[in-house]
This record gives sequence, C-alpha cells and structure tokens, in this order.
Amino acid sequence: MKNFISVKDVTDINALVNKALAYKADPFRDRTLGANKRIGLLFLNPSMRTRLSTQIAAANLGMEAVVFNVGQEGWALEFEDEAIMSGSTVEHVKDAAPILGKYFDILGIRTFPSLQNKQDDYSELYIQQFIKYAGIPVVSLESATLHPLQSLTDIITITETFKEKRRPKVVLTWAPHVKALPQCVANSFSQWINAWGQADFVITHPEDYELDPAFTKGASITHDQDYALKGADFVYVKNWSTYNDYGRIYCNDPAWMLTSDKLNATNHAKVMHCLPVRRNVELSDEVLDGFSSIVTHQASNRVWAAQSVLSELLARPL
Amino acid sequence: MKNFISVKDVTDINALVNKALAYKADPFRDRTLGANKRIGLLFLNPSMRTRLSTQIAAANLGMEAVVFNVGQEGWALEFEDEAIMSGSTVEHVKDAAPILGKYFDILGIRTFPSLQNKQDDYSELYIQQFIKYAGIPVVSLESATLHPLQSLTDIITITETFKEKRRPKVVLTWAPHVKALPQCVANSFSQWINAWGQADFVITHPEDYELDPAFTKGASITHDQDYALKGADFVYVKNWSTYNDYGRIYCNDPAWMLTSDKLNATNHAKVMHCLPVRRNVELSDEVLDGFSSIVTHQASNRVWAAQSVLSELLARPL
Amino acid sequence: MKNFISVKDVTDINALVNKALAYKADPFRDRTLGANKRIGLLFLNPSMRTRLSTQIAAANLGMEAVVFNVGQEGWALEFEDEAIMSGSTVEHVKDAAPILGKYFDILGIRTFPSLQNKQDDYSELYIQQFIKYAGIPVVSLESATLHPLQSLTDIITITETFKEKRRPKVVLTWAPHVKALPQCVANSFSQWINAWGQADFVITHPEDYELDPAFTKGASITHDQDYALKGADFVYVKNWSTYNDYGRIYCNDPAWMLTSDKLNATNHAKVMHCLPVRRNVELSDEVLDGFSSIVTHQASNRVWAAQSVLSELLARPL
Repeated sequence: MKNFISVKDVTDINALVNKALAYKADPFRDRTLGANKRIGLLFLNPSMRTRLSTQIAAANLGMEAVVFNVGQEGWALEFEDEAIMSGSTVEHVKDAAPILGKYFDILGIRTFPSLQNKQDDYSELYIQQFIKYAGIPVVSLESATLHPLQSLTDIITITETFKEKRRPKVVLTWAPHVKALPQCVANSFSQWINAWGQADFVITHPEDYELDPAFTKGASITHDQDYALKGADFVYVKNWSTYNDYGRIYCNDPAWMLTSDKLNATNHAKVMHCLPVRRNVELSDEVLDGFSSIVTHQASNRVWAAQSVLSELLARPL
Repeated sequence: MKNFISVKDVTDINALVNKALAYKADPFRDRTLGANKRIGLLFLNPSMRTRLSTQIAAANLGMEAVVFNVGQEGWALEFEDEAIMSGSTVEHVKDAAPILGKYFDILGIRTFPSLQNKQDDYSELYIQQFIKYAGIPVVSLESATLHPLQSLTDIITITETFKEKRRPKVVLTWAPHVKALPQCVANSFSQWINAWGQADFVITHPEDYELDPAFTKGASITHDQDYALKGADFVYVKNWSTYNDYGRIYCNDPAWMLTSDKLNATNHAKVMHCLPVRRNVELSDEVLDGFSSIVTHQASNRVWAAQSVLSELLARPL
Repeated sequence: MKNFISVKDVTDINALVNKALAYKADPFRDRTLGANKRIGLLFLNPSMRTRLSTQIAAANLGMEAVVFNVGQEGWALEFEDEAIMSGSTVEHVKDAAPILGKYFDILGIRTFPSLQNKQDDYSELYIQQFIKYAGIPVVSLESATLHPLQSLTDIITITETFKEKRRPKVVLTWAPHVKALPQCVANSFSQWINAWGQADFVITHPEDYELDPAFTKGASITHDQDYALKGADFVYVKNWSTYNDYGRIYCNDPAWMLTSDKLNATNHAKVMHCLPVRRNVELSDEVLDGFSSIVTHQASNRVWAAQSVLSELLARPL
C-alpha cells in the first residue's frame, strides 16, 4: 500500500480487516513498529472520531502523531496551479506539502468538498495535490468524495457482528438532515461493500439523490425504503446531498427517518451510522438507544481500522 | 475514587494532599503507573493552568494525554434528552460520550455554567451527562458549579505553607470584576475547606452575593470585609456573580479590591487566587507583586493535585 | 546560551551550525538529552513550520513539547505594567509567565509586532516581559523584530550548499506583497549574516524600505536590484513593510518580483525564502518550481536549527 485514499489502494480487504481485529485483540502487539516515525495529521475541517482514533492508532504502534488544524492554527492554503496569490490564500500546497513530506513519514489529511464545483470535488483536487507534492504516503482522513477509514471500519464491524454462513443483506438508506452534506460516506461505503463482494447490497434513497455510479455499480438501487429494508441484516443510515444537480437538498421528507417501526421488516437488523448523527432527524432516539444500534461499537472500531492501515504503510520502506 | 467531581468523591483529603506532596518531592516516582493508559482532556471552554498542569501530571505518570478543544476542533454538543436535533447542535452527548469512553481510560472535562439557568447549572447537567454515558472515570477540569482540582490545590498549598500547631484562619473574600463570573471556585473552596475541617473559615462578600448554603454551611459569613480579615492567616480573593438572583452583578464597589493596607489587619496573611486575576481590579499590583502573594506557588501546585487524583484513579482497575 | 532571542545570544555561530548538521546526519544521537524535560510552545499568532519543526526537534532530543495557542485556547494577555485590567485582557504576563516557568523547563514563544507602535515593537516588549517573568530559558519562535531560528536555518543552508573556497555573495532582495508584513525576517537575516561575517552581503530594496541600521550595518545597500543580483550565489527573497515611516506599504512595484530572467545575472544563484510565499507576487512559479529554488531544503533545515538550539539550552543546568 502506497497511499490510503480509496479501496483501490487495498489489495486484500479481508487481510486488512483481520489485521484490524488482531490489533483489537492485542492493541500493543506491534508497539515498536512505528518507533522514530512520525505522522502529521492535517485537518482542513473539524474532526473528532477520525482525529482521536488515528492519534491513538499511531500511539499504539509507537509512532508519534502531530495534529495540525490548518486554518485555525495556520492559514488558508492555495490549491490552484499558476494562481497569482494576491488574494486571501497565504501558502500554496506546492510549497507546504513538500515540507510536510520532510517533517513527517506519513501524512494524514482531511479535506472537504465545496459542494459547489462538482468537477473540482470529484477530481479530489485537494488531496491529490498533497499526494503529488508531499512525496510520502498520504492517508485520507476523509476527502471530498470518500472516507476510506470509515468504510474499512464498517466492514470490520459487519465482519465481527455477522456470524452466519450466508451472505448478509446490507442496506444503505438515505436519511433527512438539516444541511447539505457531502456524499463521501455513502460513496465510500458503496465502493467498499461492492469491492468486498461478500454482501447483498441495496441502496435506497428518494428520487434525485442518485449517487455517482462509479461507486454504486453492483448495488441494487430503489426508491422504496420499505422494500429495501425487508430482511436486512444491517441498515446503514446516512444523509447526503444531491450528486446530479450538485450539492442540493431536494426532498427532505421526515418519513425517511429510520424508526423502530421500520426495523420490524428487517431480519433483526443491526443499525449503523458513521456519526455525528442528528437525533430524531436522521434516526429516532428509540433506534439509537435500543438494542439494534451498534453505532458506538462501530465508532470504537475506528482505532483498529486506522491501526491496520498505518501498520501496512509502516511495513513498506518509508 | 470512581470519579473526581467534588469533595464527596474523596474519602481522605489529607491522604490525597500527602500523595500530592510526595509527587512534588519526586515527580517521577510512579512513572509507569499510567503505562498504556490514555486520558482525554475535553475543553468546552478555554483553559491554561488546568490544561497544562493535567497534561504534565499525566505525563509524569507515564500516561498519554490527548487534548481536544470541543467546539473549536469539533462541533457543538447537545445535552438535552429527546432533543429533535434540527438546530445548531451537531452531536448528542449520548453518542459522543460512549465513544470517548472507548477511546480513553479516563476522561477529563471542562464544562461551564450558562449563568442564565440556575437549575441546569446547579444540576451539573453537562458533566453528569458525560459521567452517565462515558462509562469510564471522569475528572472535572472545572464544571458549572465546582472546581475540585483547584480546591485540592488550595488545601495542598495551605498545608505546605502553614507550619504552626494551631488551626489557620482562612478567609474567602469577594472581589470586584468586570464580568459576571461563575460561583464555582468559591463554591468549591468552601466545600473543601468545610469538609477538610482543619481551618477556621470565614467568607466575606457584599450583600446579595450569598453563595449556595449547600457549599458554605459550616463557615462564618459576614458583609464586613475589615472584620473578616482580622488575624487571617490566608486570604483567598475571588469574584463571583450573584447566586440568588442568578448570574448578576449587583454591587461592584472598588473598595472591595484587596490592597496592602487591608492586609495590615491580618496575621501576615498569605494571599491566594486561582488565576487568571484582573490586576488593580480584584487585587492591587502592590499585593500581587509583594511578599504576601503565593499565587504562583499555588498555581504550580496544580500539577501535584492533578497527579495525585490521576494516580488514585489509575490505582483502581480501569 | 541562556536564552535564544537574537544572534547576540550565540557565542559561536559555526559551532551551532555544525551541531545542527550533526543532528541532520543522525537525528537521534542525543535522544535522551531532554529526558524528563518539557518545553512549552506558546503561540500568540499562527505558525506552521516553526511549530512543527520545534516540536519535532524536541522529540528528537527526548523532550516533551506542549503546544499552547494563546488566545485561541486561552485568553488575551496584558503586557503593560500597572495596567488597570478592566478591559479585554484577562491575564497579565506577570502572572502567566512565572507559572509557565514552573510548568516547563524551556519556553518557546511566538509574538508579533503591532506595526503601529515602533517603539513598543522594537523594544520587544512582549518577549522581554516573558523573559523577565518566566525565570527559565526563552526561545524566540519569531518575535516582533527578529526570527533567529529562521536565520540560523538560513546560515545552515548556505553552509551546506556552498562548497567553494571563496566567500559567497548573498543578496537579500525586497519583494512585493499584498499585506504590510513585519521586518523581522529581513532584520534577523541581516543581523546573522553580518555577525557570521563569512559572506559578501548586499541588501536591495525600493526607496523608503530602509531597515533599521542596527541590523543592517556591515551590508552594502542599493536600490538597484539588477546591480545587486550580479554574480550573486544566494538570493534571499522577502517582503517587508517600511521601517522609518513605520509599518506602511509605499512602492509595491511588481517589477521587484523575482523572476527567472533576473536570475540570469547571478552566478547560478540558489533562491531562498522563509515561507509562506505568495506565488507570482513575491516570486514567480518559474523560479519556485525550477532548479534554483532551495526553499524546501531550507525549510526542512528548520528542524536541525531548532534541535541545535534546544540542545545548547539543555546542556546547561536548567
């Protein structure tokens, strides 16, 4: 593994999952693997779980993690080539990234989409510029269109939870929200579940919320949430804004909120969410506080996903 | 000790004080006690001394401390049960706290009062929600109504400084300020000195600044500052806003500022303050820069108070 | 070395440079020198390279670094003596600094100039107050008028890069910018190159941009950029605002931007800049992306400069 930006960087998903579960069983089994190595964790927008879990994963491997909140602690970065920098951006990624590449052995970066310019967002301009200029392995801590550490966590959690011999039915369902959110968690979950190939995967959302087929290809897609939920073993709840007419909120029908009633149609489904979650908007209290919810378990697995990925990156000569 | 929220969590104050003084004499005497343990330090509002001293205390015990400024680095938390989260809060403490409980072994939290809603503040809604949902020991880094690490520090400082065989006279005096401040330092100091029971304790403040009797019960209370100061061995200076008609500034008479002249009536009293202090508003330069002031000594003891408390929490199976 | 505020704190520049190069060759050669020592890194304004490189330098020496963003994580400090603190400043440096001196073994501080009050700025009020009250060694992480860690880095970089037997010609050239910037990098570079005495040093800038002669004395100064660049071995590009009529932008002629064309007159000069740099305002893309630029190399040397300085400070009894 050279970078960790999408599922395409992974040659064997199950091997990565098993490594994560081995770390969960024994967090300090590779406690010197990262000795004298440093990871810089750059945040271009806020993070709680991703930051803390990656910091802890690094420490478990004996690697020093340095957090840097760009913008808050630093200044606005420029990403456009050939920019005449007479405006508000203070430093070009072409100048910042190579130096971070000298200071650190691995670079973790959280970027975000504009939700205005689909082409820029879906070309992953920001994180690709860091990869181009840093010269060291880059780990996505969520980018404009993907969130691979979350998706690896999700497959770890499904693997751990589902003990039957058959394939689980996994449903990704859109949920209402009050803000226009990125598509990255939904894209990434779809991309990983499809690449994993060990689940029957159904996506359900209102009309106009179609995701980029580059990620969903292989899934069944329906606008009928009730139909989708039938017999589900896992229900992943997530809001996203529109992809086609980019970054908008069309239907925001509260009837799409996941409730206990709706779960009756499932096969005692476990309910997942990447968090943070808007209670009683995306998911009812009843579901989140009930026995179906595995969101805390899921979030706690973030540490082992990150540790597994960092371990892979440390195993190759840096 | 299960949590450290108020003096009620402490079975033997003097044992805790003596442990702190042992750490002061030899900071690294338990340098492996916290090996492979992590404390998360969450700040819902700013801190300098508390943050730095707790971070250092953890490091002295070989424990990793991770600082997280909620709101700045993360997002606004919701604390109300059954909230429909369609407003500005992004994550419910019911979802955030359990995950922090998975990531860390101990959680330190600084919350703050609204100074608007007395009932919410005095029920310690925020920190109690964290305790309820985190599932790991919680250390108050100052809460809405109490500041126990400060109060433990204060008793350490008095113990260290006062070498006579008799009981010291300790006076808590209200001082003017420019803002409406919480009552927590005054409440907490009163609660601890009363529970400690080894001092003659007098509180003096203008009319209308009565504190909650739940904390002051056992102290002599007077509106006559000059009378209170007579023969004092320690004078603790602190502003607070009104408790009864909650969160207001009534009298802000500059005559209540502690000056050198006023100290003449004392028994060469040592002057204490939790800091930060508004110079020439709460206390005159003359006092702060003179031989009576032990505020730097006091603040430096914050490390040993925190180390003593963390040590207690680490000593029980986490 | 007692503090590290300017070149005047250094008895032997070349010894410090050689120590830095030894660390560059073997970063962990003194990995226990800082055991059980702590450095506090206080930022009164933002920093990326300085913060990260100093943090890494400390870690290389086995010393714990604690970053504190004053103002963001804390509150506004007061620096005026005898202030009646009824305004917006919350804590006086007289109270904050001694406590930081108790918590840490070394204090790194980044302050900044007002660019309004020349006398306050050039008396280095802020950092001098910290030195006066902290009681421990203070390292400048850039102050109102100087940036010694940058300048030491610059001499390390020149020493490493220039292998001829003769003295290099070093040119400091003013460049256009969109904001009024401090003079500190230019002052400090001038002060160090002059004190070093191993280069022919030329400063070029438009009329009205004269620097304080206290720092430039010993350099040739000209308003003719083309003439200055002739035969240069190193060209240091930097904007600064006016010193005499303080803190202003007079001429901002784009013709002063350094371009490849202008480099033709040099002796294959290496181009330096402290970063961040405004591309196509101070320096053209062509220069920054070409073989002449050593800005990344230069910035990566920040770690070794900081490590050399911290090592010196740790070597004396703290």
